[in-house]
This record gives sequence, structure tokens and C-alpha cells, in this order.
Amino acid sequence: MSYSDNIIALASPSGTGAIAVIRISGPEAIAITDTTFKSIGNKKLINQRSHTIHLGHIVDGDTILDKVLVSIFKEPNSYTGENVAEISCHGSPYIQEKIIQLFLRNGCRMATAGEFTLRAFLNGKMDLSQAEAVADLIASDSEGAHKIAMQQMRGGFSLEIKKLRDELLNFASLIELELDFSQEDVEFADRKQFEQLLAKITTVLKNLLDSFALGNVIKNGIPVAIIGEPNVGKSTLLNALLNEERAIVSDIPGTTRDTVEDHISIGGINFRFIDTAGLRDTVDKVERIGIERSYEKMEQASLIMYLLEASEANNTDIEAFIDKYRHKQIVIVANKIDEISAEELAELTDTNPDWLFISAKSRVGVNQLKNKLLQLSNAGNLGKNDTIVSNNRHYDALLKALEEIQKVKEGLSEGLSSDLMAVDIRQALYHLGEITGSVTTDDLLGNIFSNFCIGK
Amino acid sequence: MSYSDNIIALASPSGTGAIAVIRISGPEAIAITDTTFKSIGNKKLINQRSHTIHLGHIVDGDTILDKVLVSIFKEPNSYTGENVAEISCHGSPYIQEKIIQLFLRNGCRMATAGEFTLRAFLNGKMDLSQAEAVADLIASDSEGAHKIAMQQMRGGFSLEIKKLRDELLNFASLIELELDFSQEDVEFADRKQFEQLLAKITTVLKNLLDSFALGNVIKNGIPVAIIGEPNVGKSTLLNALLNEERAIVSDIPGTTRDTVEDHISIGGINFRFIDTAGLRDTVDKVERIGIERSYEKMEQASLIMYLLEASEANNTDIEAFIDKYRHKQIVIVANKIDEISAEELAELTDTNPDWLFISAKSRVGVNQLKNKLLQLSNAGNLGKNDTIVSNNRHYDALLKALEEIQKVKEGLSEGLSSDLMAVDIRQALYHLGEITGSVTTDDLLGNIFSNFCIGK
Repeated sequence: MSYSDNIIALASPSGTGAIAVIRISGPEAIAITDTTFKSIGNKKLINQRSHTIHLGHIVDGDTILDKVLVSIFKEPNSYTGENVAEISCHGSPYIQEKIIQLFLRNGCRMATAGEFTLRAFLNGKMDLSQAEAVADLIASDSEGAHKIAMQQMRGGFSLEIKKLRDELLNFASLIELELDFSQEDVEFADRKQFEQLLAKITTVLKNLLDSFALGNVIKNGIPVAIIGEPNVGKSTLLNALLNEERAIVSDIPGTTRDTVEDHISIGGINFRFIDTAGLRDTVDKVERIGIERSYEKMEQASLIMYLLEASEANNTDIEAFIDKYRHKQIVIVANKIDEISAEELAELTDTNPDWLFISAKSRVGVNQLKNKLLQLSNAGNLGKNDTIVSNNRHYDALLKALEEIQKVKEGLSEGLSSDLMAVDIRQALYHLGEITGSVTTDDLLGNIFSNFCIGK
Repeated sequence: MSYSDNIIALASPSGTGAIAVIRISGPEAIAITDTTFKSIGNKKLINQRSHTIHLGHIVDGDTILDKVLVSIFKEPNSYTGENVAEISCHGSPYIQEKIIQLFLRNGCRMATAGEFTLRAFLNGKMDLSQAEAVADLIASDSEGAHKIAMQQMRGGFSLEIKKLRDELLNFASLIELELDFSQEDVEFADRKQFEQLLAKITTVLKNLLDSFALGNVIKNGIPVAIIGEPNVGKSTLLNALLNEERAIVSDIPGTTRDTVEDHISIGGINFRFIDTAGLRDTVDKVERIGIERSYEKMEQASLIMYLLEASEANNTDIEAFIDKYRHKQIVIVANKIDEISAEELAELTDTNPDWLFISAKSRVGVNQLKNKLLQLSNAGNLGKNDTIVSNNRHYDALLKALEEIQKVKEGLSEGLSSDLMAVDIRQALYHLGEITGSVTTDDLLGNIFSNFCIGK
């Protein structure tokens, strides 16, 4: 399956920068670039070796659009597996547009979202779960999410699935062969071995399915609602949690800082702090007012941090609150311990052994709080080589595969006839194949790649 | 003059995209990259040829940060003239930061704004006006601005200055030589030829200075104030002007569109439409209310477009307005001509031959309006090979050089002694040298390059 047309898109982030990269892929990618590129020394790109870089000008008739570097990659040794040219131009949106327009007039068409990666998949450069990992990698904004995406992109997870599927496929063939000899009552497939394989597959699938709860929070961040009356020190606490992170990146020009305000990475895991403005008053008041939206937000949170002032600890009735949200994980945090005496603090810690005592202002107890959050989230112990499923589609396919495998197991133990068992095996094979892309439909590919950015 | 340290910065626009490019430059740029880059096939970058691309992983200890392509450029054949490595990684801000942090720990430091281009200048890869053109090129957002920047980057303008300066320098040497023989009353410098050179320099400088008015508006766009009562069709007109541009770029994913709202490119020249909300009422009212800010905005505009409804043309007294703003260029535009009869229209065009008659809604007369704006702006006749000065610093230096040249001319005609004339010539040489960077100071370089983006 290969494409006859040539696609182009901006591959670097849109906007203004020092340079921008425009990517062209297709059978004539390099030849088309030759028609608009005048290299220093008048070399033709088509005659150059793969993985080389050439300085020159992009010209549109008499007009020089830009002085650029062109990198060429010859099929199959490129990202897409096709001929690829990458133009590194000056990072002006005007120039980016003019160059892309020129190529559109010269036989390219705009790439659709994810089309470069789709072509990479269809040309066998990567399997489907690896292709999906590319998008996850680009979206990754924490150590945990990055680790999972990187692992998936390297193929560890899909190789495991592929190996099991191949073994299952082998049995399926033997069992279907039995159908041809059904009147002779032979068994080509060793039932004992088959049972062992099914047990192995079941274990692997169950482990992968179990990993999804963790994979999902790591990928999407752990939603935390902070509850507390005004002035209990919520923003001071957020800053205290945040600043340590910021110190590390202070030298790096980045855009993430603007949006990082309520995302805090602890131990490589993102915690998303949810604004519960409506709940800032006491619990009783909230219950009286009954603000629907705030309740909804509380429900979205998997962790609730209840922040109060240490000096007010004895005047706060949080029993009702804890009772109401007993289905959530709740951390009670007493702030401003620098404003009470050592005796008062000692008494408080005695009466409330589960609480955390901090001073956000002077950064006392902040690390303990971080550890507590990490521990409650259950995401802190992400090992280096753990295989983690973080993709809803994979979870769904694994779940369906497991159901079919269970049916096959039952069939096997009940001595189901080969022809009926073969149907269930085919279904299991289908769902496992969906993960790696051994089985695909246009709809499936459309769904997956439409979520990519254009240019990838 | 060469640097001993190695600098790093994100070169592509910040944010998320398919890929991002990180640039490293310095004596050890490639060697440092080798310490963190594991190529497929375990090749060392340092042993590879210049202008080649290598696939591999950036690793931080045991952790794989990303699968990347590394391009290497060996000194002096790189942008900066130093050893350069460019890492093309996945376009996640998280990955960008992690890779930059890794290199900072491995012996690089963050590049300051424009430092790559500063190094290119100091290593003789381009002169100062070419370096400045790089920033202009990146900022260019119209055909005109792009053309001027491209021309300046290619060196046409500075080569001309350099040539004249060399000739002047030659005469300066001869005249200073006369000082050594002052008692013998010899003239090494041919006064006739010198006079001709001064005349030539004067002409060139005057032409360049004259071009600045145009260069400045082309670079910064032409500010246009639209005045009109509510509902006269201001936004319909802006959309009509804008949509034709948009149609061209409709297929191109770009970010400029968001900010293009009140920038309209006509004939390759940017017109910036200034919101004069305060002046939307009739002129009389405005004068009564006297909103300071709106007046200021009117003063900033070099063109004023007065928009009125054709059906109200006879009820509108615009004489007072025209009188008040007689120092500005004013276009009177009667909109909604589709709402009056042909007879009324004929009468109006007879009585007001200078007005433009349009229907923004049905796009009648919009092209004539564009031509009128272009004509009034005086920017439409930008030839392909005109040398245009668009930089304030260059204008300033040219002006000072011209003053000194005038003094030299006067001295020459008045038979001034060689030693006094030599002082003025040196001053002229200094100011001409400032343009190309033959003469620089740290302050000057600091001022210029601090306006660049980091990564360029």
C-alpha cells in the first residue's frame, strides 16, 4: 500500500521563531523541491545522498522567498518510508505560508492531521500502537507521561501483544485445520498446550488491563480539589509546590510556564489542581447554597485536599465533610503552624494523627505533603520497565480480547466443537490485532490520526 | 575573535508541534552532543561529515529522552561559522526542556538573544546590516517587508556602502600621507577625483535617505484610521478587504490569521487599521466630546478613511472634518450604493468626483478602494531591485555620514588644510562603517542583538 501523491505541512510549532521546518513527503518530494530550490553550487537534490543537508534559496520565479537548508531522506530510510525533504527556513509565518503555497502550486497537497505518521504506519515503519505513542509523546508534559509514551513508541508493549497473537494464530490454524478433517475426529492442536497459552494470554491481558488505571492518571494528570476558606493559604501552598519545579526550569525559555499555574509535577506525575471557588466558604454554607458546579468539580477530583488554618483547627467541623466525601481520598492539611505555639501544635498532632501540618509560607512540611499526594495517587512507584497501558482504545481492545479468550477457555473446558471455538478465537485475534494495527479499518485509522496535529 | 564556550537554544517557535529544533553552537558543540546521543549503529558524530543527518536517541543516563535526528555542521561551514549540531526532536515542550537541561549540565550555556547571529557576524559570515536583516526577515509579515529584508540580507545595500567606504578610505590614506610631507606641499590625493567621489557618495546617501520614508512604512505597515458612524459598514468593508487575502491562504494552517484581523495586505503592503471607536459618532459630536485618545489615534494615522452611507451623503457635513485634518491624506468612501437608485448615485458621483463609491456587502468598488489606498500610500511602486533603507539605525548613520561628507566637500572647496579635512573624513568613515559593522562597539552590538529572539 503506497501513496502516489506528495504531501506538505509545517512540522515545527506555528508562530514566529528563529527557524521553521516544512516537511514534504511522497514519491516526488525531492524532485518537486528541486524545482523551487536553487542550491549554492547548483547541485540537484535528486542526485544527492540520503541524510544530507544543502544550503540554497527557495525561489518563486524571479522572487527569492528565503535562504534555507534542505535535508533530504530517500525512501525507505525516512520517517514516512517515502522520499522526504525538510526545509529549514526563517521562522516568519509569512515565509512559511509563501513556501507552502509555492509547493501547493507545484504538485503537493496539504497533509491531513497525522498523515506523515499514517504513511509511516502503512509503509511498515511502525505499528499502530507505536504511531499512537508519537502523539502521546508530543502531548506528554510530565516525566510519567513521557516515560509511558516513550516505552510504547519503542514497541515493548505491542511486541508482547504481537507475540501472543502469533502463538494464538498458530493454534487457530491448527484448530481450523481440524474442521477439514472433522469426520475423522483428529486433534492437530494440542489441547494441553493450548490451555497453557490461553492462561498465559489471560495473565498478560489482565496485567495490562490493571495497569490502565495508573496509565490513565499518569497520562492525564491526577485531579486534585483544594477546599478551604479564603486566606487559609491556598495560593501560597500552590506556589510553594510550584516554585521548586520552576527553579529547575528558570533558565529555559518555554511556553509551558504560562499554563503550568495549576499543574504541578510531583515525582514526575502531574497533579491538576481544580479551582473550587464556590466551595471556599465553610462546608455548611456550601451545603446551604448548594452550588451544582462545585459539586461536580469535587466529583471529578480523585483527591481532595482540605486546607485549614492550624489556629482554627478546633473550630472547624470537618466530620460532616469527610462523611460526605468518604468515597474520595481526602488529605486534611493544617497550614500556618508557625502561627501557633509548639504546645498547641503538639496537641493537634496528637489528636489528629492523620493530618499533615505545614507552613506553606516558610516551606515547612511541603515535601511531606508531596510524598503524601504521590502515595495516595498510587502513581509514585512507576518502575523503569513496567508496561503500562494508557490509551482508551487499547484498554477497550484488551478488554474485548480478554472476554473472547474467556469464552475460548470455557469452550475448551466444556469440549466445545472446533468450529464454534474457532469463531471465538478469530474474535480474540481481531481485538488483539486492532492494538498493533494488524487489523485496521478506515474508520479506525481515521479516528486515530485525526487527533494528531498537522505536520506529524 | 572566537568564542570558547558552547551555546544552546530552542530554534523553532516555542509551543507544541510535530517537531522542534534545538541548536547548539561552539567549539565542542558536536563533541558534547556525542556524549548524550546514541546513534543507530553507534557512530560518533564527531567522525561524520559536515551537513549529514543521523538518527538515534538522546539519553540521560538510563533514561531515553527522545528519538531524534541530529544534523551536524562543521566549522566554518555553518550558520555561526562554528561547529553546530541541530537536534530535531518531538515537538513536546516537556521534551524540549529536558533536552536543553541535559545539555546545560553537559557543558553548554543558554544562548542570549541573537547570539547565534552575533557569532555569525563576529566570525565574518555576514556583515552587520545582513545580520539585522535576519531579524527583519523573521518579523516580516507582508510582501513588501519581506522583499526589503531579503534584499538587505543578500547584502546588496551594504556592499554598495562598503564599496564607497573603501574608496573614501583610500583617499583618506592619501590625504593623511600628505600630513607626513606637510612641509613639502605635495598632494597625493587628486582633488578633482576626490570631488567626484564625494559627489557620488552624496548622491547615493541622499537616495538611500530618501528611500527611508517608504522603507519605514513598508516595514511597519501603513496606519489607517477608519472613521464613520455605527452601521456604515466598517466591519463588512474590513472583511471584504480581508477575505480576498484569506481565500489565498485558506488551505494553509497558520497562526497569523488570528492576529490579521486589522492588518490587511494590499499589493504586498500592510495597512494597519486603527480602531477609532471614540470617533464613531458624527464629527460635530466628536468635537463636542473631544476624546483625547481618539484624536491621538487620528494623529498616528497617515491615512484617514471616512466611511459614510451613500443614502446619507447629502445629510453629512464633512467639510469641517476635512478642514481639521487637511494635513492628513483623507479618502471619503460612500458605502451601500446598492441601497440608492442609479439616478441618486449618478448625482452623487457628479457632485463628489473625489469620493469612492462602494458596496462592501456585494464587493462593488472594493478593488478601486484598494488601488486608491495603495496609490495614496505611495508604496505601491516598490521595484524589484530598488535599494530601500528601512532601519532606523541605518537612517541615523547615513544622515550623520552625509553631514560629514558635506563638511568635507565644503572644506575641499574652501581649500581646508589636509589635517582638518582628515578629521571630517574619519568621521564619515566611522558612520558608514557603523552600518556594515566595520566599526562596532559593544553597546552597539548589545542594542542590535538584544532585539533578536533567543535561538537565532
